[in-house]
Amino acid sequence: MPADSLYPPFLKHDWISRIEGDALLITDRRKLPFVHDEVCCRSTEEVAAAIRSMVTQGGGPLEAALNAMRLAYRRGEDLDAAASILSSSRPTNTTMARTLRALLADKGKERDFEKLIDGVFQYYDDLYDAVSDVGAGIIEDGDGILTRCFPEHTFMLSLLKAVKSGKDVKVFVPETRPYLQGARLTEPSLRALGIQCFLITDAMNAHFMAEGRITKVMTASDLALSDRTIVNKVGTLSDAVSASYYHIPYYAFSLSLDKDRTRRDIVMEERPGKEMKNIGGSAIAEEDAVALYPAFDIIPPELVSGIITKEGVL
Amino acid sequence: MPADSLYPPFLKHDWISRIEGDALLITDRRKLPFVHDEVCCRSTEEVAAAIRSMVTQGGGPLEAALNAMRLAYRRGEDLDAAASILSSSRPTNTTMARTLRALLADKGKERDFEKLIDGVFQYYDDLYDAVSDVGAGIIEDGDGILTRCFPEHTFMLSLLKAVKSGKDVKVFVPETRPYLQGARLTEPSLRALGIQCFLITDAMNAHFMAEGRITKVMTASDLALSDRTIVNKVGTLSDAVSASYYHIPYYAFSLSLDKDRTRRDIVMEERPGKEMKNIGGSAIAEEDAVALYPAFDIIPPELVSGIITKEGVL
Repeated sequence: MPADSLYPPFLKHDWISRIEGDALLITDRRKLPFVHDEVCCRSTEEVAAAIRSMVTQGGGPLEAALNAMRLAYRRGEDLDAAASILSSSRPTNTTMARTLRALLADKGKERDFEKLIDGVFQYYDDLYDAVSDVGAGIIEDGDGILTRCFPEHTFMLSLLKAVKSGKDVKVFVPETRPYLQGARLTEPSLRALGIQCFLITDAMNAHFMAEGRITKVMTASDLALSDRTIVNKVGTLSDAVSASYYHIPYYAFSLSLDKDRTRRDIVMEERPGKEMKNIGGSAIAEEDAVALYPAFDIIPPELVSGIITKEGVL
Repeated sequence: MPADSLYPPFLKHDWISRIEGDALLITDRRKLPFVHDEVCCRSTEEVAAAIRSMVTQGGGPLEAALNAMRLAYRRGEDLDAAASILSSSRPTNTTMARTLRALLADKGKERDFEKLIDGVFQYYDDLYDAVSDVGAGIIEDGDGILTRCFPEHTFMLSLLKAVKSGKDVKVFVPETRPYLQGARLTEPSLRALGIQCFLITDAMNAHFMAEGRITKVMTASDLALSDRTIVNKVGTLSDAVSASYYHIPYYAFSLSLDKDRTRRDIVMEERPGKEMKNIGGSAIAEEDAVALYPAFDIIPPELVSGIITKEGVL
């Protein structure tokens, strides 16, 4: 049974990206769950452009980049150049950059490059499995878990394992404006797995903590430093601060700590404010309104109860 | 010069509601700022229905109800019955209920009922002026002020007075989902007054506090109790909790403390979750998603630095 048979639809490998002939088809997450549309990329540059324009996000760029490297190899392209183009498409995603760097370093040792890529996919499936064993262990019977944005495989599998072991769990999902990943990706994915969840607006975090209905905060991390600093979708700091006030633990999942960086090295992505001023094509503010869109929050170590990794909770 | 010449357009009396012939025209705040549309009400019941369906909100129902009482009087209706229909249309708005009760109590003393109503409008204009003198005094040069939802006359006039006295002030305006009062009403109103403001998403509160750009939180209050408990739009608790963590003061404006109630008496309005699942007609979540929409937060006294009233900061 393939590892991804457990994943909700949007997280199955073929739903993230797939090769058809000489093209890479990337599912357009901006249109999910209403339409399953794929963006067709015929070059490494087109894949990088798709990542930059948010066709895929979270763990999606890593998988799309691995498949893009496979096609670059088949086309006989310069692989170092391809990896560099792909890595620079989402600078905060250092996991992608480090994975591509390791892939090229291993290239000397193994003749079959495509087998190496298969190995990386397998490595991540095994990693999701191992990290989610740790995550499931933390979840307690009766927990109400607040998340943020779209925490992918590790969070989903942790919940699935917790529920399968008989624990009663509810998840509170903030819609996560402006791109609404919570409403469009997380909520349908949890529902597809049969996990009870509630869609809420972005600033209801403290409301449900004060009522005692949220007992844990668990999110993914775009970046986790070894000093326990977490970088994740804007809003996560508000969640962590509120959790601290109500004596609720905040855990972040990490596939790999970034040991080479310190907080000083974090370059924050400021996206154009105009991305905030419409929803599904409808304007929500006037043309002249000045909107600010810092894409990420930095959550300092004192607000992080633990980082969930395959080695356990750090 | 009429008192309301200082107010931004959406807060001028005639823009909130106005009498034309035997009808009350109420500006439909749900369509602002894109369209200035008025809902025409020809009976007390129609005014109550318009309030219930959010045609007007915040301080709007009070003004619409006063005008509805004027028309009920002209039609020779039972004024006690009219006041009771209007008061029950927005139970959290106890200011409206108390004002109508006081108006009827005064009716015995004054022959001209319409003059009494004129007096109530004048009373509120004077009150906005007095409360905003106190508010302006609290605002400091260089302040970055986070608000929530649509804090009306007292907040707007406080800022105007602070800026006119030479203070440099910036306002951070959360869009305030689901009805987007921040994006649609507060931001354009501040801009109309020439006050620098930034539109942000609902959970960016802690982000800008951590950066040191937010130095105060100031909101209206739907209800203020004499023990300093505040009831205001959901999200305000998250703001107040974050402010407390970053040692930033949180102030709420109040036109009149509700001295008859305790926290135990607060009945929270739970609105239908489906109101959250579309924006401007576009679906943002799937049909089967379960959404929760508690309309208000209760902010406990320990998170409230002060209540801004005409008597000063309590």
